[in-house]
Amino acid sequence: MDFEKVLNEKIELINEGLKNYLKPKYPPLIYQAPRDRGFAGATRLRPLLLPGACEAVGGNPADALGFACAIEMIHTYTLIHDDLPAMDNDDFRRGKPTCHKAFSEDIAILAGDGLLNLGFETMLSEAVSRGDLKYTKAALTIGELCGVRGTIGGQVVDLLSEEKKADEETLLYIHKTKTAALIQAALKAGAVIGGADSETLSALDEIGYKMGIAFQIKDDILDITSTTEVLGKPVGSDDKNGKSTYVSVFGFERANEDYLRLSEEVCGLLEKFGEKGAFLCEYAKRLINRVN
Amino acid sequence: MDFEKVLNEKIELINEGLKNYLKPKYPPLIYQAPRDRGFAGATRLRPLLLPGACEAVGGNPADALGFACAIEMIHTYTLIHDDLPAMDNDDFRRGKPTCHKAFSEDIAILAGDGLLNLGFETMLSEAVSRGDLKYTKAALTIGELCGVRGTIGGQVVDLLSEEKKADEETLLYIHKTKTAALIQAALKAGAVIGGADSETLSALDEIGYKMGIAFQIKDDILDITSTTEVLGKPVGSDDKNGKSTYVSVFGFERANEDYLRLSEEVCGLLEKFGEKGAFLCEYAKRLINRVN
Repeated sequence: MDFEKVLNEKIELINEGLKNYLKPKYPPLIYQAPRDRGFAGATRLRPLLLPGACEAVGGNPADALGFACAIEMIHTYTLIHDDLPAMDNDDFRRGKPTCHKAFSEDIAILAGDGLLNLGFETMLSEAVSRGDLKYTKAALTIGELCGVRGTIGGQVVDLLSEEKKADEETLLYIHKTKTAALIQAALKAGAVIGGADSETLSALDEIGYKMGIAFQIKDDILDITSTTEVLGKPVGSDDKNGKSTYVSVFGFERANEDYLRLSEEVCGLLEKFGEKGAFLCEYAKRLINRVN
Repeated sequence: MDFEKVLNEKIELINEGLKNYLKPKYPPLIYQAPRDRGFAGATRLRPLLLPGACEAVGGNPADALGFACAIEMIHTYTLIHDDLPAMDNDDFRRGKPTCHKAFSEDIAILAGDGLLNLGFETMLSEAVSRGDLKYTKAALTIGELCGVRGTIGGQVVDLLSEEKKADEETLLYIHKTKTAALIQAALKAGAVIGGADSETLSALDEIGYKMGIAFQIKDDILDITSTTEVLGKPVGSDDKNGKSTYVSVFGFERANEDYLRLSEEVCGLLEKFGEKGAFLCEYAKRLINRVN
């Protein structure tokens, strides 16, 4: 497999899909705001994992493209809302003005609401047009993991923990809900669409959790060890913002050990999917070994 | 039918359902914020219409209770977000502090996000546990009408029209999307759950549209003709806020004529459902003839 070629083809499909779902209608601003800002420079992590998992369990990844776009819409709404002045108050993301800076705060709130809603609409529309309840199940999997018991609950705990050192349990809850949950959602929803049995779904749940935590530990480590040039954002920003990280809570040595152990476990678990899981496995490896 | 008794029983069922869906888990704040503020003093209009339509088309209204709670969650999220400082900047709603005043702006944004997500989760969970695609279809109906082509699109146009007189087409678009859409959604989703055919669904679409516009015209008329005591909020607030209304755009006489015509048409259409539609018909009559 020419991994880079396959990766680029898959990203192109997702970009085309998103462009199509967000083709401006009336009022154009509610389509333009998320298209221009929310999706700029995105890695497409979650929408790559979702059809990847579908393929790994023996399904057709094309069946999962609508859901891949939907999970990217949902991820993007969380970024737009997290950046708002009342939340993290960030003016830039990936080097470009955030949605509320480029447009206005009210439009950013509505662009986020619109993307969350459009994510669910897209999944429901897929389920109805394909006439198969497994799509409804996949949508529920995503809905549960990105809701008040998942990503949204995590953001609340994160906001309440600001300016005080989080304890181990709280930090793990935040990383689990804010980072791992949507990765688990992508893998599990893809697998449901691919027709996975409950044992395989449990395995993907475990992989998603471990991949998410490893990904976040790597983020926390890079914030200390990388350079601004490589990272594309200021290093040491977590410390400066008084943010608890895996490194500040568990120490650097333990963070590095856990990162290596989790990465190894993820790769071991993914290799069991054999040739069908080759893309997912290679993508996961690059993801956790990334340098920025 | 002892209408008041039946009405109160139905409201009690909805309140119990909502209390149950929002039973505090971790972090409790994300359940408490919408429970304490968002649902205070609500009329339960949309969650009464939804099972009412299910019953009117021959279904069991108990099958629609989860969806009734879901549509109230979605309606409540729009109120919480509309009240935010960056949007309408309202400190009070129904005589109580708005969510961002009682808690904080970040929590209000997340409480709104959480309710929208929980609304979809609730509908998807109903669809999966009942194992019937008609629930997925009902959820899609609601999702389409409350999204960027519905309520959210309407709020964008409303914000963009502030401080300038809206033309007739723009005002109708705002009333259609911001008021009628969720009433149409309630009636159509209830009817889908009740097993309605496409002809009946079209009729309920028309009823929902006309009911929504009549409801909104009545609102605009009461803002001029009522007293602060009867209305429970200052009269003349639309004019004071420079808000275009049906009365300011079409004139009082035309507004009153349209209101009476639409109300009559709604009642005529609803009477066709006979005894099964008795509750819905009576409720609709009271709704459009209300004095506050």
